[in-house]
Amino acid sequence: MTDFAATKALFHLPEGMIYLDGNSLGPLPKATAARVERAVTAEWGEKVITGWNRAGWMAQPTVLGDRIGRLIGAEPGHVVLGDTLSIKVFQALAAAIDLVPDRRVILTDNGNFPSDIYMAEGLIKSLGRGHELRIVNPEDVADHINDDLAVLMLTQVGYSDGRLHDMADLTAKAHAAGAVTVWDLAHSAGALAVDLQGCNADFAVGCTYKYLNAGPGAPAFIYVAPRHIANCQPALSGWLGHAAPFAFDLDYRPGTGIERMRVGTPPVLQMAALDAALDIWDQVDMTALRRASVALTEQFIVGIEATCPMLTLASPRDPAKRGSQVCFAFENGYAAMQACIAQNVVGDFRAPDIMRFGFTPLFIDAGDVDRAIAVISKVMNERLWDDPAFKQVSRVT
Amino acid sequence: MTDFAATKALFHLPEGMIYLDGNSLGPLPKATAARVERAVTAEWGEKVITGWNRAGWMAQPTVLGDRIGRLIGAEPGHVVLGDTLSIKVFQALAAAIDLVPDRRVILTDNGNFPSDIYMAEGLIKSLGRGHELRIVNPEDVADHINDDLAVLMLTQVGYSDGRLHDMADLTAKAHAAGAVTVWDLAHSAGALAVDLQGCNADFAVGCTYKYLNAGPGAPAFIYVAPRHIANCQPALSGWLGHAAPFAFDLDYRPGTGIERMRVGTPPVLQMAALDAALDIWDQVDMTALRRASVALTEQFIVGIEATCPMLTLASPRDPAKRGSQVCFAFENGYAAMQACIAQNVVGDFRAPDIMRFGFTPLFIDAGDVDRAIAVISKVMNERLWDDPAFKQVSRVT
Repeated sequence: MTDFAATKALFHLPEGMIYLDGNSLGPLPKATAARVERAVTAEWGEKVITGWNRAGWMAQPTVLGDRIGRLIGAEPGHVVLGDTLSIKVFQALAAAIDLVPDRRVILTDNGNFPSDIYMAEGLIKSLGRGHELRIVNPEDVADHINDDLAVLMLTQVGYSDGRLHDMADLTAKAHAAGAVTVWDLAHSAGALAVDLQGCNADFAVGCTYKYLNAGPGAPAFIYVAPRHIANCQPALSGWLGHAAPFAFDLDYRPGTGIERMRVGTPPVLQMAALDAALDIWDQVDMTALRRASVALTEQFIVGIEATCPMLTLASPRDPAKRGSQVCFAFENGYAAMQACIAQNVVGDFRAPDIMRFGFTPLFIDAGDVDRAIAVISKVMNERLWDDPAFKQVSRVT
Repeated sequence: MTDFAATKALFHLPEGMIYLDGNSLGPLPKATAARVERAVTAEWGEKVITGWNRAGWMAQPTVLGDRIGRLIGAEPGHVVLGDTLSIKVFQALAAAIDLVPDRRVILTDNGNFPSDIYMAEGLIKSLGRGHELRIVNPEDVADHINDDLAVLMLTQVGYSDGRLHDMADLTAKAHAAGAVTVWDLAHSAGALAVDLQGCNADFAVGCTYKYLNAGPGAPAFIYVAPRHIANCQPALSGWLGHAAPFAFDLDYRPGTGIERMRVGTPPVLQMAALDAALDIWDQVDMTALRRASVALTEQFIVGIEATCPMLTLASPRDPAKRGSQVCFAFENGYAAMQACIAQNVVGDFRAPDIMRFGFTPLFIDAGDVDRAIAVISKVMNERLWDDPAFKQVSRVT
């Protein structure tokens, strides 16, 4: 589907709101409420325990995983849903470290999402084998890929600047140095055409509540390249990753393929919401989506720079080096974003000074961008943000 | 509330079904569909990203944690929801091991749920510090508590036999030996009056989709005793356990108190279902519930033993040593359970030969137990299970 006027009609957006925060939490697809209600009443209510088989709950993590797999260029049968993104980062990094047992350096950048870094710190400490987490500037990553490197762990699109790493190039460099890669697709999946297979990526993880619109707390996903999966010994060895979960053996034997990256019971109600969200994504051509996304971000940058000289572009100017969000730095960014939200243009703020706007062609069009520019311009030029009410920090996301 | 006829009216049970599997997946409370619908449409749909604050999503894991805390005798502010039970086992065991750095033995029993054992195996392997998982018979646990012991890790009520460990006694013995305890309450929370504080328990974990009726894939919980929490360095150090998640620091600093055991984004829709389920539990007197549970299990044992000589009681005969389920061993238990289910009496099967029946006073009464006994007796005495259709293994739970 390349007709994004048609997809826009599939979403519920609050009256009058221009929602430029679909990169943080996607809005509600209109079909979701009925799908979730079916999971609650017709599935759980009527099938009770037999829903695990008869409503397909047990298979959801891999069935839905394949539908996400298409969006990120994964081979069928190599993506599975479950847990949160932080847990999936832990699993992927633990497995990646195991594949390069003689090296100790994990390389990431300071634009990576902090939870990825925290999970790596926790894992390294647990392992107690002297691994070093080397954190460099995003633009310096390539220069730090050398023969010490065990794992290159990056978020493809930076959460606070929208910078887009070149997955193909960095993966090739990492492989040439004898390292493996872990790619976080939190701001990529549903934002641009990811090609895990074409890039020869090793591991990837991501979430489904941002661009994929599966709702607050929707499950994460993990991808393991087919060449690696048989060698992955899950660090989080839960029963649903066991080769025979219902044999209740006392010894862990990992399941075949990506199933071994499952841990515990899948969140069935959240999976139902994801199912409804993917009904839209199943129809989307990712190349067309990326084209529309670039057009929206270009339009926004031009419009804001023409009217708001006090805002400094904090995202790459070259659209080929940018994801589907645009960030501007402003000293009073927190208050300014609150003032925009009060005017029904919703983006978000990221410390210390970043105003972040996400562009999601499925439900944002050029008219919305024009209206957003007009509102932001008014907020900035009339200093509407300079109101004590907007400076009280209470927002948690 | 001690009027369990009144609570029964709060559940939707499939027409004609006697549901003795609430210990595996609790049935649907009638109020849940509307509560989840509100989370989907009024919260996510209308508040979008601001729901994290304005709909209270961010606070749910601790707010709901306290409501569960009352049922398990926890101090207020020391239970938090999130992830799956397997992940919570990993967190609790990792923290417990850290508290006893000079010892290497983790003791559990072969009646523990396999995923707990698998997660322990995975953790021990990751740590690589020579810990030993010692697995003994349930009745021999006390004899193996000695000065080698680091952590005693037990499920209070055995999943496959309903055996109830004496939490107060075993915790005291473990403490006397210088060890700490991790209690899995999967088959205890909502099944009997747990008194974590009174037992001086160290760590506890549990799930909410069984007796607590929060739905398929509902989140797990973790308890850490107040005396330990400040010394727990989370092994799964996710951003929502950080002291200041939205400062986006690059260094992990654990949050105050139980908040540090949070990892990633909470599953908001599942939390809404839990919220509705707890509206019932908030009214329940756990002593009265336990009394009713014992009466039902006693009635069931007497009735089955009187009519089904081919079934062998696999649960403790003394109700003081039994949780809220009754297990019978039968060579053709799988087929027999399928035949019972075909007659609308729903329990479940656990390999190799266990027919398991859960008793949940909130929605099962003495009349249901009488009817169940009559059906099971007919299935067994008329050998209704001896039908090829019932012998095909397809059920996954």
